[in-house]
Amino acid sequence: MTRLIDYDAAPAEVRAVYDDIMRTRGVRDVNNFWKALAVDPPLLRATWERLKQVMAPGALDPLTKELVYLAVSIAHGCTYCIASHTAAARARGMDERMYGEFLAVVAMAAQTNRLAQALRVPVDPAFG
Amino acid sequence: MTRLIDYDAAPAEVRAVYDDIMRTRGVRDVNNFWKALAVDPPLLRATWERLKQVMAPGALDPLTKELVYLAVSIAHGCTYCIASHTAAARARGMDERMYGEFLAVVAMAAQTNRLAQALRVPVDPAFG
Amino acid sequence: MTRLIDYDAAPAEVRAVYDDIMRTRGVRDVNNFWKALAVDPPLLRATWERLKQVMAPGALDPLTKELVYLAVSIAHGCTYCIASHTAAARARGMDERMYGEFLAVVAMAAQTNRLAQALRVPVDPAFG
Amino acid sequence: MTRLIDYDAAPAEVRAVYDDIMRTRGVRDVNNFWKALAVDPPLLRATWERLKQVMAPGALDPLTKELVYLAVSIAHGCTYCIASHTAAARARGMDERMYGEFLAVVAMAAQTNRLAQALRVPVDPAFG
Amino acid sequence: MTRLIDYDAAPAEVRAVYDDIMRTRGVRDVNNFWKALAVDPPLLRATWERLKQVMAPGALDPLTKELVYLAVSIAHGCTYCIASHTAAARARGMDERMYGEFLAVVAMAAQTNRLAQALRVPVDPAFG
Amino acid sequence: MTRLIDYDAAPAEVRAVYDDIMRTRGVRDVNNFWKALAVDPPLLRATWERLKQVMAPGALDPLTKELVYLAVSIAHGCTYCIASHTAAARARGMDERMYGEFLAVVAMAAQTNRLAQALRVPVDPAFG
Repeated sequence: MTRLIDYDAAPAEVRAVYDDIMRTRGVRDVNNFWKALAVDPPLLRATWERLKQVMAPGALDPLTKELVYLAVSIAHGCTYCIASHTAAARARGMDERMYGEFLAVVAMAAQTNRLAQALRVPVDPAFG
Repeated sequence: MTRLIDYDAAPAEVRAVYDDIMRTRGVRDVNNFWKALAVDPPLLRATWERLKQVMAPGALDPLTKELVYLAVSIAHGCTYCIASHTAAARARGMDERMYGEFLAVVAMAAQTNRLAQALRVPVDPAFG
Repeated sequence: MTRLIDYDAAPAEVRAVYDDIMRTRGVRDVNNFWKALAVDPPLLRATWERLKQVMAPGALDPLTKELVYLAVSIAHGCTYCIASHTAAARARGMDERMYGEFLAVVAMAAQTNRLAQALRVPVDPAFG
Repeated sequence: MTRLIDYDAAPAEVRAVYDDIMRTRGVRDVNNFWKALAVDPPLLRATWERLKQVMAPGALDPLTKELVYLAVSIAHGCTYCIASHTAAARARGMDERMYGEFLAVVAMAAQTNRLAQALRVPVDPAFG
Repeated sequence: MTRLIDYDAAPAEVRAVYDDIMRTRGVRDVNNFWKALAVDPPLLRATWERLKQVMAPGALDPLTKELVYLAVSIAHGCTYCIASHTAAARARGMDERMYGEFLAVVAMAAQTNRLAQALRVPVDPAFG
Repeated sequence: MTRLIDYDAAPAEVRAVYDDIMRTRGVRDVNNFWKALAVDPPLLRATWERLKQVMAPGALDPLTKELVYLAVSIAHGCTYCIASHTAAARARGMDERMYGEFLAVVAMAAQTNRLAQALRVPVDPAFG
C-alpha cells in the first residue's frame, strides 16, 4: 500500500508543512493525502501553499469553491477526493437538500456533455 | 456537419419543446444543442424537461449551479458545453474575479485529483 | 496541421497497408486516420491488422461492435472517432430510431456513472 | 462509508420507487445504487423513471443496450457500474465469446481514440 | 470478484502465453492482469504479443516508456495500472527524486490541460 | 472566441510575467495559452512560476518531462496542449522514431487501462 508519513517519522521540512496545515485548519492531524504527498517534500509544500491560497474566501464563498472542487473530482473519478471534498462541503454548510441538488446538476451536466460531444454540436456565435 | 433542425423545418412535437425553451428563458431562438438533439424528439423532450427542473432555483442559487455545471463540463472536455455554460454563468452574475477564482479551483482540483490517484491514497476513516 | 501521407507520397510499406484497407473495405481511398498514423509505419500496420481482426463479424454482429466503439469514443471525447464511427454505424444499418435510443443509453450511463462515483456506492455481493 | 437506505428504514416516497424497481425487474431487493441514491428522493425517482424508459426494448435489443451502457461505464472508470452492468449483460445473454469480443472492441476503441487525438486528425469530409 | 485463472487451471493456449511472459520477464508467476485477461485466450495472446513489442527497448529507453505508461494510467484513473506501472518504473530505475519530479509534471499537466480547455485557447499557428 | 491579451494591451503585472516567459524561453512572444490565462493576472503568475520550476532540468531530463506532459494531455483530450507539447517535445529532441514509439506506448496504456478496469483486476500484493 501507499506509504503514509506520520508526523513523528517526518523530516523537519515536512513537519513544518504539517504544522501549517493543522494551524490553518484548526485540526490535530493532517489527512492521508498530505501524508502520502510527503514522499516528495517540495511537491508537498508547493501543493499546500497553492491550495491554501486558492481555497481562501474571496469573490466566491468557501462552500461554492468546495462544490466546484467536488464536481471536478467526480468527473475525474477520484474516489479519495470525492470522499474528502464531500466531507469538506458538509463542514462548510452543505445540507441534504443542497447535496441532492448538487448531484442532480452533476448528473445533468454529465449527460448533456456526452450528448453534445456525440452530436458534435457547433458552438453558437452568441457564446462569443 | 451536424444536422441542426431549425424551427421552421421542425415537426410539431419539436416545435412544442422549442416554444417552451424560448418562453422559459425569454429568448427568441434556441441554442444549437437543442437543434441537434431534435434528431430524436423524445430525447429532446426528456432532456429539456429534466434540465428545466434541475436548473431551477432551489437550495442552491442559479449561479452556483452554473459553476458546478461548468466544472463538470471542463473535466469532461466538452468544448460546446464549456462555451455555453461560461456564457450562462456570466449571464447569472459571474464577474472576472469570480471567474479567475473558479478557474483556480478547477486547476487545483485537477492536479490534486491526479496526485491522489497516482499515490493511491487510502480514504481517511474520518471522511465516513 | 497534422501531416497526412497520401498514397502517392507513401513509402512501399505504407502503401501495402493502404492497399489492404481499401481491398478489405471496398473503398477507393483510406481515411485521414490512417494517413496520419502513417507517420510511423510499424504502428500503422499493427493498428490496422488488429482492427481488421477485432471488427470482423463474430459472436457479436458488426453493428453492435460499431455501437460499442462509438460509445467508448463519446466517453473519451474523441471528435474524430465520433464522426468516423457514427458514419460507420449508419453504414452498418443504424437508423434514426436506433440512433436516438443509442444516445439515450449513452446519456443515461454518463449520469448514473457519475452518481455512483459521487456516492461511492459499494459493489453488491450479488454482482460477483 | 456511503449511507445505504434499506426498505424498512425508507420513507414512503422511497418505498414506492423501490416497489416499482422490484416489480419491474422481478427481484426481491434493490441494488446498492438505489439505496445510496435514496439520499435524495426526487433524484431517486427521476433517475429510475428515466432508466426504466431508456432501457426498455425498442429499436435496439436489451443486450445491445447493456453493452453500450457497459462500454461507457468502462471509459468513465466507474467500478460500481462496470460490476453491475457486466452482471446485467450476462443476465441478458452475453456469453464468454461475446464478452471477449466486446472487451477487444473496447480496447481497440481506447487505443485509436487516443491515437486520433494525439495526431489531431482532421475529420474527413465524407463523414458529414 | 474477478475470476483469475491460475496456471494449473489454465488451458494449453493460455499456459503458452503465461510461459512466454514468465520467460521474457524472468519471473515465476504472471500478474493478476494476465490471469483476468485469460477469460478470452485470443485477447490475452494479442495483448501480450503487442505489449512485448511495444515495451522492448528502442529509440526510447525502458524507463521513459514506463513513465509514459504510468502518466496515461493516472490520467485514466486506472488504479490497478497505476500500482503495476509504479512498481515497474521503480524496477527500471526510478528513484524518489525522479518520482517526485514525475508527479509534479503530471500535476502540472493536469491543471494546465483543464485551464486550456476551460479557456478554449486557439492553437498557435507556430505549433504546426 | 477566447479573449487573448497581447503585450501592448496588457497591464503591468501581466507584462512582467510575459517578460519573464520570453526571457526564460528566449522567444519574442508568448503562446496563446498565456494570453488567455491573463484574464486573471494572479492565476497567470502562479501558473507560470510553478511551470518554470517543474519543467526545469532535474533528476528527469527535459525531453522525458515533455513526453510525460504530452501523455497526460492526450489522455485528457486537450487539443491545445497536445499541439503545444508535441512541438515542445520535438524542440527538445524527439525524432520520428521516438514519436512513433511514444504513440505506441500511449495506445498500449490506453487499451490495457480500460481492460484492467473492465475486468476489475485486484492489485497484486507484490506491487506494494
